[in-house]
Amino acid sequence: METHTGIPDKLKLAVLERIKPTEPEKEKLLAVQEELALQVKAAAERLGIQEVLVIIVGSAARGTWLSGTHDIDIFISFPEETPRKELENLGMAIAREVAKNAEYAEDRHAEHPYLNITYKGFDVDLVPCFRVASASRIKSAVDRTPFHNDFVKPRIKGHEDEVLLLKQFMRGGGVYGSELKTQGFSGYLTELLIIHYSSFEKTVWAACSWKPGVKIDIMKHAEIEHAEPLVMVDPTDPKRNVAAALSLDKFCMFIDHCREFFKSPELRCFFPTPLLPLEDSEILERLEVRKSTQLAIVFKTPDVVEDVLYPQLYKMEQAVAVLLKEYDFTVIKTGVWSGKTKTAVMLELISGTLPNVKKHIGPPVWVKVHAEKFKEKYQGVDGVFGGYIENGKYVFEIQRKYPTAKGLLEERLISCSLGKQVHQSVERGFEIIEDVGICRLKDPDFRVFLRGWM
Amino acid sequence: METHTGIPDKLKLAVLERIKPTEPEKEKLLAVQEELALQVKAAAERLGIQEVLVIIVGSAARGTWLSGTHDIDIFISFPEETPRKELENLGMAIAREVAKNAEYAEDRHAEHPYLNITYKGFDVDLVPCFRVASASRIKSAVDRTPFHNDFVKPRIKGHEDEVLLLKQFMRGGGVYGSELKTQGFSGYLTELLIIHYSSFEKTVWAACSWKPGVKIDIMKHAEIEHAEPLVMVDPTDPKRNVAAALSLDKFCMFIDHCREFFKSPELRCFFPTPLLPLEDSEILERLEVRKSTQLAIVFKTPDVVEDVLYPQLYKMEQAVAVLLKEYDFTVIKTGVWSGKTKTAVMLELISGTLPNVKKHIGPPVWVKVHAEKFKEKYQGVDGVFGGYIENGKYVFEIQRKYPTAKGLLEERLISCSLGKQVHQSVERGFEIIEDVGICRLKDPDFRVFLRGWM
Repeated sequence: METHTGIPDKLKLAVLERIKPTEPEKEKLLAVQEELALQVKAAAERLGIQEVLVIIVGSAARGTWLSGTHDIDIFISFPEETPRKELENLGMAIAREVAKNAEYAEDRHAEHPYLNITYKGFDVDLVPCFRVASASRIKSAVDRTPFHNDFVKPRIKGHEDEVLLLKQFMRGGGVYGSELKTQGFSGYLTELLIIHYSSFEKTVWAACSWKPGVKIDIMKHAEIEHAEPLVMVDPTDPKRNVAAALSLDKFCMFIDHCREFFKSPELRCFFPTPLLPLEDSEILERLEVRKSTQLAIVFKTPDVVEDVLYPQLYKMEQAVAVLLKEYDFTVIKTGVWSGKTKTAVMLELISGTLPNVKKHIGPPVWVKVHAEKFKEKYQGVDGVFGGYIENGKYVFEIQRKYPTAKGLLEERLISCSLGKQVHQSVERGFEIIEDVGICRLKDPDFRVFLRGWM
Repeated sequence: METHTGIPDKLKLAVLERIKPTEPEKEKLLAVQEELALQVKAAAERLGIQEVLVIIVGSAARGTWLSGTHDIDIFISFPEETPRKELENLGMAIAREVAKNAEYAEDRHAEHPYLNITYKGFDVDLVPCFRVASASRIKSAVDRTPFHNDFVKPRIKGHEDEVLLLKQFMRGGGVYGSELKTQGFSGYLTELLIIHYSSFEKTVWAACSWKPGVKIDIMKHAEIEHAEPLVMVDPTDPKRNVAAALSLDKFCMFIDHCREFFKSPELRCFFPTPLLPLEDSEILERLEVRKSTQLAIVFKTPDVVEDVLYPQLYKMEQAVAVLLKEYDFTVIKTGVWSGKTKTAVMLELISGTLPNVKKHIGPPVWVKVHAEKFKEKYQGVDGVFGGYIENGKYVFEIQRKYPTAKGLLEERLISCSLGKQVHQSVERGFEIIEDVGICRLKDPDFRVFLRGWM
């Protein structure tokens, strides 16, 4: 068994000093929460809606939120037997009543509609849900949240700092957040890790030796197998993996981050130096040093939430790589960046140009009918350079249809399998920008992305 | 069953007119053969060597030689129990006596030494051999030849024209000759095909439907399995495949040639138009149209017979392709040309240049010890562009060691697995010639090769 020297208390304190909510911050948040709960109740009464309960959930409710984040989750709970449509209508009616006092309100949609408001500077979700008897009987994903709250709250008491350290550490490693964009660790998962391993240090130490398939089952009640790299059996639902959204790469990035931390436990593991936008001159310099081909497929950012957008962008990234490979281009890597107005799918290729001549391998000569058809199709045809037999197969040297990656993408991108909104946006117009042309993309956030990219 | 219309007699006659030895030609050859046989006997007597027999073998002895070829094979046969060394010494002594009357003589070496002489314009091999009781008891490969002669001679009588047609047809298709350079059909194999299928036409028709594994066993006495594409069990040796030297591609080229012939039975199937040397302007034009990279590895032709040289060149061709692929270059095709003074291994590549950046994929992050070692080796090292995790594995973008194929070959060719004489020649010096540089190679025979190549 490997051992490790403990993490200096001084370091932990230095981190906590920056991330732990101050007493005034806590009081403020608790007061706003209370205020909102009362408003929900009042609204329900005003609207004559019976049997509504208000549940305050999330990290704010459990004292595990990072200073500076201002998220409050208020669940508006209806009896289990309420018809879905009624829950949606009445729940949103109550939320809209509350929103009358908000600075800003926006309808959002997960499985149900819910309301996101800005209230006294806080980012508040007002979420209608069913009040079911147990987490295994939920009617909608959000119904689970109150059970998570009930499980975590009593067990995390006294360990809130450990959760804060772990969350910030994951942020520093770029693996915090379970949205479809990040595919990392959720807040709830982080809390369960602390409950299981008992401290930040022990969690990080254990993770250094994680392997895909590691399974944590706090309640020892798992009912099914899961294929994801990390399995954290939901203490409130034996069938569910809390870490289902965690991708293999984020899982590995976390392992790597933990190992680096034990090699040199430093503040920068929690607060990495922010990357600066890449300057034009640096782009040119890096292009010259790498001598590969950089391509950016640029189009208008579709007007949808990130949880809808990113899966479509990742799908596009894959589809484009498959298209390029199909036409003999060698893809070094792919990436995705999306800003307020523009989105770019990035591709690095061994070369954006291929020779005109393409080796087209046919059937073995002795498979008579196929071989003869193949030969007839190509022999002596315009644009066919020549033919020969290799390894018993007919080979014709034919004119390559797409000798440039740019030309290929311009003609075939639209026929790739793309998600709905991305397809719509690409259909309206896109641009293939190559190498130095990338300097035309000035968005500072894109330039920050570019520093990590090339 | 497919059928075919017969080959016009007119065509066969037109071919035979060009390839069948005339009566005077036949008389001359028979006279010279007789003369040589007498000289061998006289020489043996003069030298006091007992029990020597003279055997005239080969196509000249069987009336199946093509007009214009002037090959005579005279075997000097010793009793089976003669010690090998004695056979070689006495056999060569007799041959040298005969050579006194020759225009030219040269020692050659297969399993034994033998003498090649030019005598009255004929290319004569004087070959010492053992007189064994049956072909399965041979002491040297040449001992088999007299048995072949005995088998073929009585059976081919009256079918000589069919053999001539088939031999010329194979020449026209570039598949005649069983030397290690050609890897095609030997004269003996051609004769056996005619004995088996009974005519030129039936042989060619049957071959249209050949598949690898086709087996002909005239004596129905095969004793072992063979892996070669065509198996012609030697009628004089049940363990031997007469077609062992025939490569898969030559086998397929013959099938293809036969099919083409039935589609349009024309004189050019026997006598294709000779290719003209490719002009400089044509080289430039073709380079421009293909836009691939052409490389020629040029070195002095080693002074060895073709049967030694070509296997080494084919080996080099393979080794070089493997080297290039190992360093990420994409080889379209390879070829070999060898002239009197210079030899060239030809390579066509997708590109002779690769980017500086190379994606170096390491072990999965969770294979802790390996992964940590890999990361330590590359992280932050000079010439490493960056690192990330992809599909659970560490990936570093490192500086490519050989960004040009030319540079790679210049530095690593000599460490490839090469045959002895080719290695010696390459060690003394070689040149990597690229694209337009190929115009510097003026040898007309190379330029003919080039017309087929690009």
